Amino acid sequence: MRITMIGAGRLGTHLARALHKAGHDIAQVYSRTMASASPIAAETKAEAICHLGDLRNDADIYIVSVSDNALPQLLPTICEGRDGKLFLHTAGSVSIAIFKGITSRYGVLYPLQTFSKQRDINFRTIPCFIEGNTEEATYAVEDLAKTLCARVVRLSSDRRKYLHLAAVFACNFTNHCYTLAANILEKQGISFDALLPLIAETADKVNRLSPQEAQTGPAVRYDKNIICAQAELLSDNTTTKALYELMSKSINEEQTKYRKKND
Amino acid sequence: MRITMIGAGRLGTHLARALHKAGHDIAQVYSRTMASASPIAAETKAEAICHLGDLRNDADIYIVSVSDNALPQLLPTICEGRDGKLFLHTAGSVSIAIFKGITSRYGVLYPLQTFSKQRDINFRTIPCFIEGNTEEATYAVEDLAKTLCARVVRLSSDRRKYLHLAAVFACNFTNHCYTLAANILEKQGISFDALLPLIAETADKVNRLSPQEAQTGPAVRYDKNIICAQAELLSDNTTTKALYELMSKSINEEQTKYRKKND
Repeated sequence: MRITMIGAGRLGTHLARALHKAGHDIAQVYSRTMASASPIAAETKAEAICHLGDLRNDADIYIVSVSDNALPQLLPTICEGRDGKLFLHTAGSVSIAIFKGITSRYGVLYPLQTFSKQRDINFRTIPCFIEGNTEEATYAVEDLAKTLCARVVRLSSDRRKYLHLAAVFACNFTNHCYTLAANILEKQGISFDALLPLIAETADKVNRLSPQEAQTGPAVRYDKNIICAQAELLSDNTTTKALYELMSKSINEEQTKYRKKND
Repeated sequence: MRITMIGAGRLGTHLARALHKAGHDIAQVYSRTMASASPIAAETKAEAICHLGDLRNDADIYIVSVSDNALPQLLPTICEGRDGKLFLHTAGSVSIAIFKGITSRYGVLYPLQTFSKQRDINFRTIPCFIEGNTEEATYAVEDLAKTLCARVVRLSSDRRKYLHLAAVFACNFTNHCYTLAANILEKQGISFDALLPLIAETADKVNRLSPQEAQTGPAVRYDKNIICAQAELLSDNTTTKALYELMSKSINEEQTKYRKKND
């Protein structure tokens, strides 16, 4: 397929690279600045552009991978005069309906992963959730996704927003727990490295056990002495202390429900 | 060394197994019930007991791996009449001072990992934090720890309690984020499996990037539209919703600090 990428952020960059590697022809890469568009355009042998007016009409598929807030503003310009082309966005929380009335063939391609510029990502292992506005469009998105990912799943916008929310918990909030742990260690002059085997095992465990089964620590037993004492250690940061207390409460609530269900 | 294990919980069980494999002689395994003591005692060719009165005096080291709350009550009985033996506890949050006035040679052995009965754990990769009440005792704990773990670090009780707190964030709170994600998916009939590549990559990333650098998602940008919309999706669970909002606030605060520091 001949594909034009609009957006050269983390996801856009990784996606362009993966599409290129999968044998697709990347026509153009658009970003707001040439500095952002040029490296990935060069890598994928595409033309870098930083004005939407320079978008050509020679791609089969236009993939729009920009911030959620920019979508409503950019889509009319991107789709105009290109009816019949396939337009896709990649945002977990944005409904497919955002294309309604703007163009006639459209869909969503949502690869469920966290993308950092400095990391290589193997798309084959990523589950990809897709949607199309017609059966024909759905098949077209599905065919495209299958050239990248081994696991391609149809999912409606209504359910995808819950999937995206779950991903925020499993990735962003998890990573934030690492950040707060790093802050605590930094103040004690202990290297964050000390936590890496624990982090790896915690993540690995849930391949075999459900997270409820895998849970350990003071909040499972709701050991009030230690919970109070640990909260005290966080007195220099109101938000972190509140988070510690709310997390402990939530763990206890969920463990209580889980035990009732399994008794 | 000839070692007696008091406690056959998750950590006690894994520790007894690792000590046995490392060539130590496990003399006895105590637990409140024979049902709990017997399997690991049989596995390590030790005697299972469920009365502290049956503790023999023929071990060099007594490792007490019971719940934090049970320690003050059990230690006097365990140590009585055995002065000169080495007594260790394994609790991250409990000070070494808990042994003071009870016996004369004591310390702490704190392997930093999460232990589940169903999982095999390779102790070589776990960092082990140790402490002794005298230089002699410290060396003795260190020597013992080195037979299990490649990375053995001396750490005072005052700093160990912060390490334990960091571990609660990096492990228990992280795992709870997985639980809440699983709950969200379960209601949508989406398999938790879909998140496994994301969870693995999130954990793997922090081997190379600091957690602050690795952070992504709506809370980094503090995208209020999506944060409000996602909080709404959690209206059926007050605690989870409050946690979502506090997490988003905390991510934004820490990212703001991080960016200021790196500007």
